[in-house]
Amino acid sequence: MIAVLRLSHRKKRDKRISTHAGLVSRALGADKIIYTGDEDNVLLNSVNNVVKHWGGKFTAEYSKHYEKIINEYKKKKFLIVHLTMYGLKLEKEIRKIRKRKNILVIIGGEKVPKEIYELSDYNLSVTSQPHSEIAALALFLDYYYKGKELSRKFPHGKRIKPDAKHKIFI
Amino acid sequence: MIAVLRLSHRKKRDKRISTHAGLVSRALGADKIIYTGDEDNVLLNSVNNVVKHWGGKFTAEYSKHYEKIINEYKKKKFLIVHLTMYGLKLEKEIRKIRKRKNILVIIGGEKVPKEIYELSDYNLSVTSQPHSEIAALALFLDYYYKGKELSRKFPHGKRIKPDAKHKIFI
Repeated sequence: MIAVLRLSHRKKRDKRISTHAGLVSRALGADKIIYTGDEDNVLLNSVNNVVKHWGGKFTAEYSKHYEKIINEYKKKKFLIVHLTMYGLKLEKEIRKIRKRKNILVIIGGEKVPKEIYELSDYNLSVTSQPHSEIAALALFLDYYYKGKELSRKFPHGKRIKPDAKHKIFI
Repeated sequence: MIAVLRLSHRKKRDKRISTHAGLVSRALGADKIIYTGDEDNVLLNSVNNVVKHWGGKFTAEYSKHYEKIINEYKKKKFLIVHLTMYGLKLEKEIRKIRKRKNILVIIGGEKVPKEIYELSDYNLSVTSQPHSEIAALALFLDYYYKGKELSRKFPHGKRIKPDAKHKIFI
């Protein structure tokens, strides 16, 4: 099981980024996203509505305290992987990480508390350049699943037939 | 050369998503991003400022008309690749696409005009699930470069030494 912990959501500024974080988590094979920061039911509903229409068992939840979540997942023997510009290289560490079945992936948040670096088993960088937690999450999941997540099926959902020019539903 | 065309930027709602699109383009090996939609100098400055501090030759520009840009790149013999939920599968088409050196990658925008599907040489899907143009762009660039973009050097910029626990600049 892969869970994603998205830190420090801000209701006004992060609406779209946080939604994207949830949808990417679902589409690329994670099972759950937990948001901290502002409590935002519009955000949770918009992610959970995608699940309703497009299938699968993904859930979006809110928690007030990231420490509580991290400790809870540590107790359940999850590997804690924090995606950051400053960590060890994704492409070098992924083989070791792939051996673990249960992972909590942490993504920022504007300012990530120092504590996160200490609480995590891995601080992992997807390039050492500034870019996007959405892109970092997408590449992490793709490297973890070796691309197999791209053809994942989502039971009970709408389905698209890939086509060169048209929008076709099956 | 890879250029990215980001459609229909909205100054109020898309500030962060459009910035991420620019930074992901740069970090993962594209050479340029062109925004259409609202003209937004704050956006252009924030992307170009990252280039100033972090190195390389990436540029962010604005254009009023996407048709103009697409036709201009077609004349220069660029392959036009539109990333969309409804297209042919990335993982099946990427080998053919990789043979081409010059590519214009198009990403939406809330509502993508039908015309884009016709003007593009490829409509390409990164999963057929709803997620994020940022994630789709990241995966496209990573598949195109076969992961080599992750260790790309950016001349004259700040540099980070990958580390397990600390923020270290070289």
